[in-house]
Amino acid sequence: MSTPPRVAGVRVASTAAGVRYPDRRDLVLMELAAGTTCAATFTRNAFCAAPVTVAKAHLQTASPRYLLINSGNANAGTGTRGIADAEACCQALAERTGCRADAVLPFSTGVIGEDLPVDRISAAIPSLLDTLAADGWEAAAQAIMTTDTVPKLARREVGIDGRTATLVGMAKGAGMIRPDMATMLAFLATDATITPDLLRAMLPQAVDSSFNAISIDGDTSTNDACVLAATGTLGNPALTDAHNDQAEAFATALTGLCQELASAIVRDGEGATKLVTIDVEAATSVAEARKVAEAIAHSPLVKTALFAGDPNWGRILAAVGRAGVADLNIDGVQIWLDDIRIVSGGGRDPAYSEAAGQRVMSQDSLTIRVSLGRGAAATRLLTCDLSYDYVRINAEYRT
Amino acid sequence: MSTPPRVAGVRVASTAAGVRYPDRRDLVLMELAAGTTCAATFTRNAFCAAPVTVAKAHLQTASPRYLLINSGNANAGTGTRGIADAEACCQALAERTGCRADAVLPFSTGVIGEDLPVDRISAAIPSLLDTLAADGWEAAAQAIMTTDTVPKLARREVGIDGRTATLVGMAKGAGMIRPDMATMLAFLATDATITPDLLRAMLPQAVDSSFNAISIDGDTSTNDACVLAATGTLGNPALTDAHNDQAEAFATALTGLCQELASAIVRDGEGATKLVTIDVEAATSVAEARKVAEAIAHSPLVKTALFAGDPNWGRILAAVGRAGVADLNIDGVQIWLDDIRIVSGGGRDPAYSEAAGQRVMSQDSLTIRVSLGRGAAATRLLTCDLSYDYVRINAEYRT
Repeated sequence: MSTPPRVAGVRVASTAAGVRYPDRRDLVLMELAAGTTCAATFTRNAFCAAPVTVAKAHLQTASPRYLLINSGNANAGTGTRGIADAEACCQALAERTGCRADAVLPFSTGVIGEDLPVDRISAAIPSLLDTLAADGWEAAAQAIMTTDTVPKLARREVGIDGRTATLVGMAKGAGMIRPDMATMLAFLATDATITPDLLRAMLPQAVDSSFNAISIDGDTSTNDACVLAATGTLGNPALTDAHNDQAEAFATALTGLCQELASAIVRDGEGATKLVTIDVEAATSVAEARKVAEAIAHSPLVKTALFAGDPNWGRILAAVGRAGVADLNIDGVQIWLDDIRIVSGGGRDPAYSEAAGQRVMSQDSLTIRVSLGRGAAATRLLTCDLSYDYVRINAEYRT
Repeated sequence: MSTPPRVAGVRVASTAAGVRYPDRRDLVLMELAAGTTCAATFTRNAFCAAPVTVAKAHLQTASPRYLLINSGNANAGTGTRGIADAEACCQALAERTGCRADAVLPFSTGVIGEDLPVDRISAAIPSLLDTLAADGWEAAAQAIMTTDTVPKLARREVGIDGRTATLVGMAKGAGMIRPDMATMLAFLATDATITPDLLRAMLPQAVDSSFNAISIDGDTSTNDACVLAATGTLGNPALTDAHNDQAEAFATALTGLCQELASAIVRDGEGATKLVTIDVEAATSVAEARKVAEAIAHSPLVKTALFAGDPNWGRILAAVGRAGVADLNIDGVQIWLDDIRIVSGGGRDPAYSEAAGQRVMSQDSLTIRVSLGRGAAATRLLTCDLSYDYVRINAEYRT
């Protein structure tokens, strides 16, 4: 992005609070203008982290004015102490600002099972409040990183009633083999005026085809969260109806923004060397298509073949075959690597050549497309390969 | 084993047929005495390999007299040509021996999607027939290996009617992160007399708690198969009733044999440095317990932590939490590493110390035990860790 991203009505600050490591930016504060509406989606993991429990509860009772986000410690698996710690951070911010404690939403990412250093976080609040600024997004996107190697920021503009609404988002996440266990956080904001009901309807739709379509359930780690805030600073007549043209344009921009951030997460997948799009089509239902796409995306054998750049299409075929599709007629299944058809008629396509497969597999990004030949439903997942570095990163993390 | 294993009524030969590599033992012939009864279990993968299709069909129409097993080529994803190739090998053996072609069961393991070298396999049949011997098991267990590093053989003895029945088995398989995609083959034989119906009842039970309890569905690659032959050479009155004491003793020995072989497969898991037993108990059903055990066994984050010897119990907790157990009360969940309780009351156990967890994690073998605190059902899975070598083996295989 050439100019720093900003959203009218949002100020952002970040600092090095020493949550886990010294001298590393690890704490972010986002301030939302009075009157901002918010929607959020959270992990469905039964062991959801303390900040998730607290943020969900706060959303029920107040309009958020502050988001307080730390990296380095997930405050997960910390029992009742974890809940008290998350509440204490909100309380500390409330005391400094005069807002209600439940107008603060807490978010954490990092190591599971260690107590949150509440004192260090509370001590950093005054300097965060002193440095709130409209152009703080880029430093914040850095601060929320854990094993990410690059910050993830995206921006869209949408025309609404002759005005130009801005939509900015930042995300973190890089544990890509199973994003459902690596925290994915995303914070999105717009200056458009949108009713809470419409905002809550639009966010899950955008998340479903973006953050929830990378590898698998981006929504099931202990800490995953995605927040969308609409400050209303733009002053447009409030968007209220999903079928309105302007609401549809906004929803499209929102989905595009989420997909750009989700794609950036996959590209930054731990140890990833390839971005792989998995398209499954001609299924009887989206759920069936998803089952097949996940079987491919989760197969360590497919993922290591991708890492090796080896067109070992038998591993893809075997993954399709074991996906659990009832009464699958293998003669109707076709599989492509980009535009090279590798499987048809129950086996290797007669026209397939190893050289053609090799060309596609040697690319940095490629598409595995599967047609089940039995319906009209389709889905898309993004995933990456499995490399030595994935093992190194995850074996060394914490040590 | 001190003395070479033998089963009266079974002769075994192996040779280097050049299926894929020169000068490597890659073809096995097992000859079963007339009157032998057989039971078999096969993969449930929709893309099942040609030899699986042929073996299933042959079992419907004749009593097996020969098992013909090759490594180096899976004859999978090979369409109608693959079926014809498998049949041609059976036919070649039938012509040499005078048996019916459907009295031969073919088995293949190796690379998917390449045509079977029928000519080289047929050419090797005369020398196989010339070298059939009772003590050929050990060389055969070598010949069926692919990425295995050690041959896998086991033996049991069972008293039946004052006689001593022998039970011998060999197995191959080492792709352990997802055994459902790496071929697992097991060939078991006994000299006891057992009716076909009883044999067919006992085998699936033994397989369920052994080969199907390693990591996950040992039964869903394209080629997986397990065959049990009872030659009847012992001359005991035929075992017919599962509830008979002697049949129960035999079933126990059979399960023990299968578990020993299954455990050997996990120990030889590709790149594995640790043997990990996952016990899930106090579940409302075995299916629920299995879901939790599989979530742990399949988690790359848990597996890399095991490789690192890092007691990162938060990853285990997160896997339990995302396993999809409905209405899981996390306060009732307890998790142990061997006898060290790491999780209770929704978070880290108060008495847990990192040093204690570290001691268990540094062992070559350990047990992860999870109590869901909601029922009486339990299950056990064996798995291993995820290492650099897993990636190397699977990225380099085929190249």
